[in-house]
Amino acid sequence: MSQFEITKKNKVVRGAKRATYDEQKIYDILDAGFLCHVAFNINNQPFMIPTAYGRRGDLLYIHGSVKSRTIKNIAKGVPVCLAVTHLDGLVLARSAFHHSVNYRSVIIYGTAVEVTERSDKNDALYCITENILKGRWEETRKPNDKELDITGVLAIKIESASAKVRMGGPVDDQEDYDLDIWAGHLPLNTCFGKPVSDEKLKNGIEISPSVEKKLC
Amino acid sequence: MSQFEITKKNKVVRGAKRATYDEQKIYDILDAGFLCHVAFNINNQPFMIPTAYGRRGDLLYIHGSVKSRTIKNIAKGVPVCLAVTHLDGLVLARSAFHHSVNYRSVIIYGTAVEVTERSDKNDALYCITENILKGRWEETRKPNDKELDITGVLAIKIESASAKVRMGGPVDDQEDYDLDIWAGHLPLNTCFGKPVSDEKLKNGIEISPSVEKKLC
Repeated sequence: MSQFEITKKNKVVRGAKRATYDEQKIYDILDAGFLCHVAFNINNQPFMIPTAYGRRGDLLYIHGSVKSRTIKNIAKGVPVCLAVTHLDGLVLARSAFHHSVNYRSVIIYGTAVEVTERSDKNDALYCITENILKGRWEETRKPNDKELDITGVLAIKIESASAKVRMGGPVDDQEDYDLDIWAGHLPLNTCFGKPVSDEKLKNGIEISPSVEKKLC
Repeated sequence: MSQFEITKKNKVVRGAKRATYDEQKIYDILDAGFLCHVAFNINNQPFMIPTAYGRRGDLLYIHGSVKSRTIKNIAKGVPVCLAVTHLDGLVLARSAFHHSVNYRSVIIYGTAVEVTERSDKNDALYCITENILKGRWEETRKPNDKELDITGVLAIKIESASAKVRMGGPVDDQEDYDLDIWAGHLPLNTCFGKPVSDEKLKNGIEISPSVEKKLC
């Protein structure tokens, strides 16, 4: 079982019993999502953006316009911190103090390398697109050279990482279990609703298989 | 209509037509959520955590253990960047390039002040708890002095902010509308599932009103 080295940077200080540094568990949490937040500094001012990602091995790909502040600054090789958080529910204790949430959360530390070759960019965009909606890439009109040239793609190598996971019901103080207060947990579910076809859709075009597979 | 001053820091560089600096629109996006990501620096290394928040006016409250790295470091008054992101759906274009997501996203810049008085801490925790689940505070056993003393509470003043919103279907290149590819958008819904009562719940305790109101 491979795990990330525990250092001062990635060590989970609080709630250590909920922490893991196991590589596969961290990858599983990453692969369950496609939206991350990426933080970086410019002159000691933190900046952050939400963006889509795809993973291949220990690389996370993100993309944006070549003109974007994030892409331009991160491409310089500055340290970045990347977070992926799945909120799984509310934990409702008898005491206000012991309220919590259920979650699966990963924090990644790394530096970015700009992906410059068109074929590598295309491959990274495939990885991101397929992570958002498996099977979609093959259904679409692929990027042309002009589109690849105006898209900035970054590969962030996962140098250090940690995860935290909380599941299940509340834990109250012993003396509070006798209180007449409802306690438990409330799962939070996300699911896709009914697809809305583009108003300019040609007649006779069926919903694509990649979308069909996502419907509840 | 009050809006945040547009400066170099909060100016949305890319997708500017999706941007807003309007105070009420930014507050509406904040009030629609309770999970944020907070980024800060230590020695030019960005750190980030996901955490719950509550808003009162131009203050955002967050909390954690007084021993946590985040609370200890942010309490020193360092600049922070805070993000709240609602993912509303997938936007599926005919071309891979024009794929997107629908979202409501806010980025906040500010500095934190530590809340130290017990009554002020209690009030901030009320604000956070009620933002997570309206009506829950009154149902619970309130924090005692010991609990307040080991809880670190920070008030982040919103000094600068911007929001971005994307809604609706895809926009494709003119020549792509003739392709036989399904295009449209796929709404993403989040809703609470069936409440799970704590296994140690006393007999005869009904699910509380705050929870009942949240059920789909």
